[in-house]
Amino acid sequence: MTGERYERGKEILDRINPEGIGRIINELKDIAPDMADFVIEFPYGDIYSRPGLDLKTRELVTISALVALGAIPQLRSHITGALNAGCARQEIVEVIIQMAVYAGFPAALNAMYAAKDVFKEIDEKEKKK
Amino acid sequence: MTGERYERGKEILDRINPEGIGRIINELKDIAPDMADFVIEFPYGDIYSRPGLDLKTRELVTISALVALGAIPQLRSHITGALNAGCARQEIVEVIIQMAVYAGFPAALNAMYAAKDVFKEIDEKEKKK
Amino acid sequence: MTGERYERGKEILDRINPEGIGRIINELKDIAPDMADFVIEFPYGDIYSRPGLDLKTRELVTISALVALGAIPQLRSHITGALNAGCARQEIVEVIIQMAVYAGFPAALNAMYAAKDVFKEIDEKEKKK
Amino acid sequence: MTGERYERGKEILDRINPEGIGRIINELKDIAPDMADFVIEFPYGDIYSRPGLDLKTRELVTISALVALGAIPQLRSHITGALNAGCARQEIVEVIIQMAVYAGFPAALNAMYAAKDVFKEIDEKEKKK
Amino acid sequence: MTGERYERGKEILDRINPEGIGRIINELKDIAPDMADFVIEFPYGDIYSRPGLDLKTRELVTISALVALGAIPQLRSHITGALNAGCARQEIVEVIIQMAVYAGFPAALNAMYAAKDVFKEIDEKEKKK
Amino acid sequence: MTGERYERGKEILDRINPEGIGRIINELKDIAPDMADFVIEFPYGDIYSRPGLDLKTRELVTISALVALGAIPQLRSHITGALNAGCARQEIVEVIIQMAVYAGFPAALNAMYAAKDVFKEIDEKEKKK
Repeated sequence: MTGERYERGKEILDRINPEGIGRIINELKDIAPDMADFVIEFPYGDIYSRPGLDLKTRELVTISALVALGAIPQLRSHITGALNAGCARQEIVEVIIQMAVYAGFPAALNAMYAAKDVFKEIDEKEKKK
Repeated sequence: MTGERYERGKEILDRINPEGIGRIINELKDIAPDMADFVIEFPYGDIYSRPGLDLKTRELVTISALVALGAIPQLRSHITGALNAGCARQEIVEVIIQMAVYAGFPAALNAMYAAKDVFKEIDEKEKKK
Repeated sequence: MTGERYERGKEILDRINPEGIGRIINELKDIAPDMADFVIEFPYGDIYSRPGLDLKTRELVTISALVALGAIPQLRSHITGALNAGCARQEIVEVIIQMAVYAGFPAALNAMYAAKDVFKEIDEKEKKK
Repeated sequence: MTGERYERGKEILDRINPEGIGRIINELKDIAPDMADFVIEFPYGDIYSRPGLDLKTRELVTISALVALGAIPQLRSHITGALNAGCARQEIVEVIIQMAVYAGFPAALNAMYAAKDVFKEIDEKEKKK
Repeated sequence: MTGERYERGKEILDRINPEGIGRIINELKDIAPDMADFVIEFPYGDIYSRPGLDLKTRELVTISALVALGAIPQLRSHITGALNAGCARQEIVEVIIQMAVYAGFPAALNAMYAAKDVFKEIDEKEKKK
Repeated sequence: MTGERYERGKEILDRINPEGIGRIINELKDIAPDMADFVIEFPYGDIYSRPGLDLKTRELVTISALVALGAIPQLRSHITGALNAGCARQEIVEVIIQMAVYAGFPAALNAMYAAKDVFKEIDEKEKKK
């Protein structure tokens, strides 16, 4: 399945989170390979590629929603995506703090611990280079 | 209660949503007036007034979280706030469409109907002027 | 269906919320009468009748959970139940304010508006007497 | 936008819920017409049209999820869809009762009231014929 | 506590998930043994044993709700239950894919990873025989 | 930041959960130290210190909300807090059982396993003394 939507989605993902989508494709390849296609085509091929909102903002609004939903694995992945899209770490931290207001302190705290962990992993990778 | 945090919060609210906070103060004045103070002091006095993220982005990440949480009355209020903070209608629409991916189509559709209604109310107010 | 669990549940409901359970029985009688039995038997016959936690506290912990879940019709009903179990209005207000911390301000505000409305209805009924 | 996915999705919707999708298209036509296309193409064109699960079961699993999510407008629409896909009213009622176990009694009760209302509307339409 | 409801529930559980209920009984025996009784009596003795919906469909609608609720341990248990009730793996996979539409992609992906893991555990047990 | 609200909050936390708040301060000190201040000032300095509801009841209503929200790390922390505020283990167990009614069995079971684990950790610490 390599239509126009797939190509458009893959291009965005290759730019902001090639490892993340690679993991998803790999995880799903035996059980539900079509679902990996759907992930590339609908969220990225159809939505993130739309004009009207820049990629940085798209990642930040996704982060706040994932905090509210408590979706930690996807939050981790989109923190990486947000950084690659050009967000500063402080912007991500601010979004998470702000979620204490709307989703409650527990959701915000659990998200902050995840962000801390992602930042640490990135720093460790950097050191090894 | 008119400390520094209250003043700082009230100033932001007067700029982006004076009617919204007015309604909250009025609704709560008999049952829980302290809660109206908390709304002004903590979310606005403590959080929205922080540097590190501009007000427009703060409103957009709140909107996506409110879509995910299904908090329609607050969503309506923050759509007004986002517009007053300088967001374009299309940016708000894009955030809501994107939430179909993370919070599901029902949450996104119910939010879009609310946005439509808020936009219509604003247009009708404009006409009356 | 009038076994021991039903009788035990009905007795508690008759004490703290006879109108509420009456409405449920009436609403469900054509579509799912067994479900009304389940409501009486399991939550009330099995759980609320247990020792180890007094009825007032049982109602207050239910209220905070309903705020978190956004279940407004049931919240209204349990505010009535809490009052009939001996809770003060202020205790209910405190529980709802506290939920701003855990479930976020939108959930707490929507719950407070519901509480205000229930209190008002009760006051109006009192006046008519 | 009338590609293959759209056609495939529209065909299913015309069979199980033409009024529902008509309302969505109409509601969204001024604010976000692309979103109506997404509703037709992704859920119906991509998913419901897949082999491996019959349409009746697809509607019933959607109903239980919508009960859990508290998405009442979409629940109403999918109750209609389930009936048109061949589900018996009693099957829908059973799914909703069962959700008391997983999503709690408040979610199940609110869903049952919605089902009752949808069934009543259908009966009234039938009488008028 | 070995009344009629308990027996009826235990019989269904012995058929579709004896290990699962065994684990629950064992986990709860010191802290809340009555709760294990409630699990057997209400969901299984009262609900799953009702006519009007076959056991396979009961398991599939439970799976979709658990995806929406993000209840991964119970999802794993009901995937096993669904297979023992006669569902094909592909049916379970289809239900989870479909939940991307209603509960969002993060909920569906996390559920799919859990399903993959359960299927793998079953395959490994099979090999050892 | 050591204003009056901070002092008031810290005093309550030192009484009911000094280790818990210590962990939060430590976790957040590099990534978002202000957030630790917010945790102390708003929930504890502003809310828990209010009259109108005793600390024991404040902890129990928080526990039920955390069960409903599925916030396991915070649930564990508040189980400790509830015990230190004077709640009996059985009261906590009763609150969790009751949540099967409102938040569903999966949420209640996952919470009970967490409670069991916290109780066990406390018992092991006691033995070591």
